Amino acid sequence: MKNKQIEALRERLGEISDVRSTISLLHWDQQTYMPPKGGASRARQQATLSTIAHQMFTSPELGTLLHRLSDSLEKLDPDDAVLVSETLYDHDRARKLPDGFVRDLAEEEGKAFEAWKEARAKSEFGLFRPHLERLVEFQKRKAELLGFEGSPYNALIEDYERGMTAERLKGIFGDLSRRQSELVNRVVDSPRQPDLTWFDQEWDEGAQWRFGMRVLKDMGYDLEAGRQDKALHPFTASMADVEDVRITTRLDRRDPFSALSSTVHEGGHALYDQGYQPKDWRTPLARGTSMGMHESQSRLWENTIARSLPFWKHYLPVLRDCFPAQLERVTPEQIYRAQNRVKRSLIRVEADECTYNLHIILRFEIEIALLEGDLKVADIPEIWNVKMKKYLGIEVPDDAHGCLQDVHWSSACFGYFPTYALGNLYAAQMFEKILVDIPDLWDHVEQGNFRPLLSWLRDKVHRHGRRRRAPEIIREITGKEPGSEAYFWYLEGKYGSLYGL
Amino acid sequence: MKNKQIEALRERLGEISDVRSTISLLHWDQQTYMPPKGGASRARQQATLSTIAHQMFTSPELGTLLHRLSDSLEKLDPDDAVLVSETLYDHDRARKLPDGFVRDLAEEEGKAFEAWKEARAKSEFGLFRPHLERLVEFQKRKAELLGFEGSPYNALIEDYERGMTAERLKGIFGDLSRRQSELVNRVVDSPRQPDLTWFDQEWDEGAQWRFGMRVLKDMGYDLEAGRQDKALHPFTASMADVEDVRITTRLDRRDPFSALSSTVHEGGHALYDQGYQPKDWRTPLARGTSMGMHESQSRLWENTIARSLPFWKHYLPVLRDCFPAQLERVTPEQIYRAQNRVKRSLIRVEADECTYNLHIILRFEIEIALLEGDLKVADIPEIWNVKMKKYLGIEVPDDAHGCLQDVHWSSACFGYFPTYALGNLYAAQMFEKILVDIPDLWDHVEQGNFRPLLSWLRDKVHRHGRRRRAPEIIREITGKEPGSEAYFWYLEGKYGSLYGL
Repeated sequence: MKNKQIEALRERLGEISDVRSTISLLHWDQQTYMPPKGGASRARQQATLSTIAHQMFTSPELGTLLHRLSDSLEKLDPDDAVLVSETLYDHDRARKLPDGFVRDLAEEEGKAFEAWKEARAKSEFGLFRPHLERLVEFQKRKAELLGFEGSPYNALIEDYERGMTAERLKGIFGDLSRRQSELVNRVVDSPRQPDLTWFDQEWDEGAQWRFGMRVLKDMGYDLEAGRQDKALHPFTASMADVEDVRITTRLDRRDPFSALSSTVHEGGHALYDQGYQPKDWRTPLARGTSMGMHESQSRLWENTIARSLPFWKHYLPVLRDCFPAQLERVTPEQIYRAQNRVKRSLIRVEADECTYNLHIILRFEIEIALLEGDLKVADIPEIWNVKMKKYLGIEVPDDAHGCLQDVHWSSACFGYFPTYALGNLYAAQMFEKILVDIPDLWDHVEQGNFRPLLSWLRDKVHRHGRRRRAPEIIREITGKEPGSEAYFWYLEGKYGSLYGL
Repeated sequence: MKNKQIEALRERLGEISDVRSTISLLHWDQQTYMPPKGGASRARQQATLSTIAHQMFTSPELGTLLHRLSDSLEKLDPDDAVLVSETLYDHDRARKLPDGFVRDLAEEEGKAFEAWKEARAKSEFGLFRPHLERLVEFQKRKAELLGFEGSPYNALIEDYERGMTAERLKGIFGDLSRRQSELVNRVVDSPRQPDLTWFDQEWDEGAQWRFGMRVLKDMGYDLEAGRQDKALHPFTASMADVEDVRITTRLDRRDPFSALSSTVHEGGHALYDQGYQPKDWRTPLARGTSMGMHESQSRLWENTIARSLPFWKHYLPVLRDCFPAQLERVTPEQIYRAQNRVKRSLIRVEADECTYNLHIILRFEIEIALLEGDLKVADIPEIWNVKMKKYLGIEVPDDAHGCLQDVHWSSACFGYFPTYALGNLYAAQMFEKILVDIPDLWDHVEQGNFRPLLSWLRDKVHRHGRRRRAPEIIREITGKEPGSEAYFWYLEGKYGSLYGL
């Protein structure tokens, strides 16, 4: 028997999904093809469509329908029951933020973003400070409106990593920051540094593009249901569940691995988004279960796979076809080592795998302190620089290369940073089990065959969409809670051997 | 004193404009970059957004506001008064079509479009016939709902060419079809045919692209507020009034003038859309006043200018830089003659300037007969072929090259075809006056200087947007009613001299 209420719900959610994926298109186009003068209109279009989506999703009619269905959850088909409970969760949460609050915050965000751009360009934190102060106040207010236990930060993390708490993150990151920082010291001090003499050449962008497309295709990314374009800041965007998931990359004539990393990274995100089940399309279930889980997919492909020796044993000949002169005498080992060189560096998005989490932990600690009232916005530059010295052993020359480098705070994304590090941890936990389940994985990789890996990820992660939470997926796969142990051993093993520690 | 009601109206219209321009983006993306599997989702997104735009525009609140403002039109600033009356006209008209009718028609359109594609591919009219029968019934019903005087066709033309009637079109086209058909006979029978021996070469697509971009820029198209991309069926789309107006073209390695014509044609449309006044942006006034007037802009640039001898005197050297080997010994006169060769041909979109209107008049007569009940859908193929013989002296080998060639009927666009021919007529009427107002126009064109022409068009046509109706603009410019006389004399003059008649 068909449930008419469920049908009505799916129809309404489908319409909301249409609007949301259209907003994705507005964003994708803005970053890829929109002509320069289109910016002001585009901002208004995004605001109008976002308001419409918000109104549709928080409408009392949808609320009534959801609550009615929720009252007899046990009578529903299990698939439908998950749909109702997850959607009701989102709906109730969205309704906790009054329209006026959402509008005021969006307006302040717009101003803060412009101020941040100027502040970063001039490396003047003072230009951004008053805006950031207001945004922090907005975040505190948001936490109150949403409600929380323990730290107010918990209310904010919830948007990105449902069920994760500041307390658990402190536990996970505390030990990791000490051990990872110590590993970085040993690596950087090692006399066994990679040979980079061959690296300093011109790398044709067209050839880089062709190589990246080849790898994408081999990974299993469906190019009939997606495409790659160029963008200043690479990203993945879904214009339709599974059937239209696009990625972007950026090319650097001086560095052939920059575009490849970004292509494989976004490709990892895109494979997740191309892996949901048809029954979940056009519903809130066709989505990565958390930002951390999403990041685990991109990081696993980018770092574990595409920065491995077996990967380069397969792809060096392919890359050499693109760059015969430049790579005539280069070995897979040289590429492997060059691609995994570790540096104490200032900029998060350029950081290597070995130092990356330290950039995140620093930001996490600052966000927590801001939200819990232990740190004033005005003191951010100082504490930033102290922590960079402590974790990465590096002096920050100016705020543009320090606390002004990231867009997140100006976009009111507080609680987002930790998910980058969580992604690394989840990926490592998963990968331990992947090597058990697919013992000849590296042989497959050395053949350029990623099908066993993709099948595993599809089965254990992708197909669930939001049906399982991130910790549940990690527990199912590993029998353990999310934690840093696997990641640390992965780093220790890889970099210990690379740097002869 | 600011009028609060006008402000509220503008705000609401701005939001509706945001949704409508977003629908344009969905369409643009579908035709340019969307991956193949995105089609089904895209259709749903377009349907959802169109429904939202329709609901916003026909909302009783907007109606109340418009009627209240309309009751005291004389107290309003004249700019605001036009805005209110034009918007109220649209609103009242949109409300005459019940939601159910709009939805059912959209659904039938979707099916008809799929059936048409298959029918055309197989050249089997029977596959499309039942859908077309239903669509004709929908059109008759639509005419009744909208109301009309004289022919029911008048209710449909109104969507594309406000104020034009079947009766006036019959008058305009009747005489023209006879005279134009007779001119085609003389041209085709002339012994003085163009030399095309040099034409049959390979024309690199990249070089064609660069040449087209150069011409676009010279025309005055603002590439900071637009861009050109490739599409199977070239079109112009506004993603934001004036500030984001994009065009598309298609390239043919065997024919360098195909892409150029389409680029200049769409460029002509785009110049119109880049020419509205800021005070009209995000309102229904920032729009071409009619499809015929829009087409007059594209045709004037495409045919009158870019198929002229002075144009080629300027651009042959530029084109020769792109194709030095192919054009080594070719003269401007040879290009001019080749580009204006006349053929009896089957396909409207490939027809030359001299035969084009005859394709339109044939369709117009069939549409009228369908709507007025004088022709059954089943008899379309036969009457099509009879008329092709009569007007163009050509046998139709199959329906794919006959009555199935155009997308319009499957998209429920009845009453649209005549606007293509009207565009030619308007352009010719305008051009007579342009030559009076800018006596050295051809000298400017020969210098590649289009600024005097663009300024004239901006002043007489573009800036008005929908503030003036098409016949009003023609009367203001020429002192005459829309008619075919100027066009016929333009054709007679141009082709008489080209073919030595």
